Amino acid sequence: MEVKNIKAYGTEAAESELEALNIERRTVTAKDVEIEILFCGVCHSDLHQARNEWGGSVYPIVPGHEIVGKITAVGDQVTKFKVGQLAGVGCLVDSCRECEHCKDGLEQYCLVGGGYTYNGNDKFLNRQTFGGYSETIVVDENYVLSIPQNLDLAAAAPLLCAGITTYSPLKHWNVGPGQRVGVVGLGGLGHMGIKIAKAMGADVIVFTTSSSKFEDAKRLGADEVVLSSDASQMKKYAGSLHFVLDAVSAQHDINAYLQLLKLDGTIALVGLPEHELPIGAFNLVGMRRNFSGSSIGGIAETQQMLDFCAEHNIVSDIELINIQDINKAYERLLKGDVKYRFVIDMASLKAAV
Amino acid sequence: MEVKNIKAYGTEAAESELEALNIERRTVTAKDVEIEILFCGVCHSDLHQARNEWGGSVYPIVPGHEIVGKITAVGDQVTKFKVGQLAGVGCLVDSCRECEHCKDGLEQYCLVGGGYTYNGNDKFLNRQTFGGYSETIVVDENYVLSIPQNLDLAAAAPLLCAGITTYSPLKHWNVGPGQRVGVVGLGGLGHMGIKIAKAMGADVIVFTTSSSKFEDAKRLGADEVVLSSDASQMKKYAGSLHFVLDAVSAQHDINAYLQLLKLDGTIALVGLPEHELPIGAFNLVGMRRNFSGSSIGGIAETQQMLDFCAEHNIVSDIELINIQDINKAYERLLKGDVKYRFVIDMASLKAAV
Repeated sequence: MEVKNIKAYGTEAAESELEALNIERRTVTAKDVEIEILFCGVCHSDLHQARNEWGGSVYPIVPGHEIVGKITAVGDQVTKFKVGQLAGVGCLVDSCRECEHCKDGLEQYCLVGGGYTYNGNDKFLNRQTFGGYSETIVVDENYVLSIPQNLDLAAAAPLLCAGITTYSPLKHWNVGPGQRVGVVGLGGLGHMGIKIAKAMGADVIVFTTSSSKFEDAKRLGADEVVLSSDASQMKKYAGSLHFVLDAVSAQHDINAYLQLLKLDGTIALVGLPEHELPIGAFNLVGMRRNFSGSSIGGIAETQQMLDFCAEHNIVSDIELINIQDINKAYERLLKGDVKYRFVIDMASLKAAV
Repeated sequence: MEVKNIKAYGTEAAESELEALNIERRTVTAKDVEIEILFCGVCHSDLHQARNEWGGSVYPIVPGHEIVGKITAVGDQVTKFKVGQLAGVGCLVDSCRECEHCKDGLEQYCLVGGGYTYNGNDKFLNRQTFGGYSETIVVDENYVLSIPQNLDLAAAAPLLCAGITTYSPLKHWNVGPGQRVGVVGLGGLGHMGIKIAKAMGADVIVFTTSSSKFEDAKRLGADEVVLSSDASQMKKYAGSLHFVLDAVSAQHDINAYLQLLKLDGTIALVGLPEHELPIGAFNLVGMRRNFSGSSIGGIAETQQMLDFCAEHNIVSDIELINIQDINKAYERLLKGDVKYRFVIDMASLKAAV
């Protein structure tokens, strides 16, 4: 198979910092789209997997699954995209296409799995896939998204993971007007959750451990903000919420949020805390509540989310960085010191040696 | 308010055994039905509350909320029942009737609460309510059930709690033909869950820690039985179940059952383990699964369940005891030594001193 050598940024080992690497990309096959990457968002998963914190990382690893750019080549059977168009790639570049979930447009729950944008299985080159911290990416057109023209391109990049990860559960659990929706965890995912839940017409209540975040939560669209460490404030919300989007990746008390749910209410976890979360049976049984989780979203739903964001003029709040600053950005990410998503200006990669 | 003195069985303190007591019942008011209690099932909650294991028990306590008998008097505004009819009373004898849940026929989730058959609030006599370990009970007709004629009366008693507690979640989560439904915990609740899920048309897979229960599980209607302590057996069922009814009150590993669920599958807890249950985030997020709970059922739904059981000729497997044997029965209940529900022949109370 014909390949091109391109520049990327990644790491050869869990304990090493990220640095410039050369990787191979296939040239476009009949169904492929080649994208010159202009911006790539920095997701906490990038850090987890660069450092092998979830296990299963294959090195070298080139992270990045919030990719936007311009199409530079298309295969001769590509029908959905043309050279020069804006395009995006999220967490998936492939799936089995045959299981019941793929057929239902739920590729994120593919029963075969492995179609991840990085650290997945590259069927063409028989090795791990490489992500968006790179000059270009080549992806089957069925896994490529159209980026609406009216969105700021850099700030749209995080929609490909943070956007869809919050949109999908809000949609699945039918969040809409007349509903009171809690958002827990005001970070990359949580701040998108606020914007999207608000645009869906819900009343949005943000729960935070830090009163310093109150003002910003309101600026992002929260109707109310609650200091989650204050039991008396929390008590006022008991049994009052239809749905809670839980975007916290650290250990936290789920029971405190279960108690805020109305009958048949749901907490959907989109963060992935490392340790198990203890649940009190009475908190579920007493009001038929649900503790649930949700993973990114399907391809068609991702396009739906992008179009929804275009209509409501929603993008991520970002801090634009150069690729050379990625290791510093990871350190700040660990401290929660980012409002609210780092996005790499991939023009900086051209200067990397 | 006019009252009658009647015989009952109960306890004056958490650490005492149950013994004969005299209690007062109101005479029927305009909307009331008086029932001569013929049989009363023995629920594990009776034991928990007699011994104040959930806290909040008020003494003396007279347990019993699986009550069937014959109507001996009705108030002058009663329209649904006549003297001489068979009637039943479950876990609820009242509710606020005004909150959104009561209006929706979900009295079990009444936002005011307290309408429990025993250890609840008796609005008429301003004290705790007394349950079915007694000669008679007087209940507002809106909380009284019709017992279908074709059911064995003693074996129908447990339908009022064990039956509705399993029917309600199976109905709520739309269990039916073509679905694979797991039942965990082969006791009073679990054995009803098997019968009802099977009658609803589902394939029923029973999970048990003891291979000695295999034969009985099949007799009760299980299509398949799995030894839950055998990891290789469990692995075969990974991702294969639509729904799991979890009727275990002891500590157990929810994650093992979450992994058996398909996309969007639900585990509904109907037992009430004392300690918190640890949940791994990946088990929820990875396949959008739900960990949920459910509490008994509403009054209209309880009638629906009784009619469903009459149609499918479903009753509980019971062991009939005399009230004088209740303390021994509690000891056996603690060991799980009952197939599958003790029911008290209340004729024995007449002999009690």
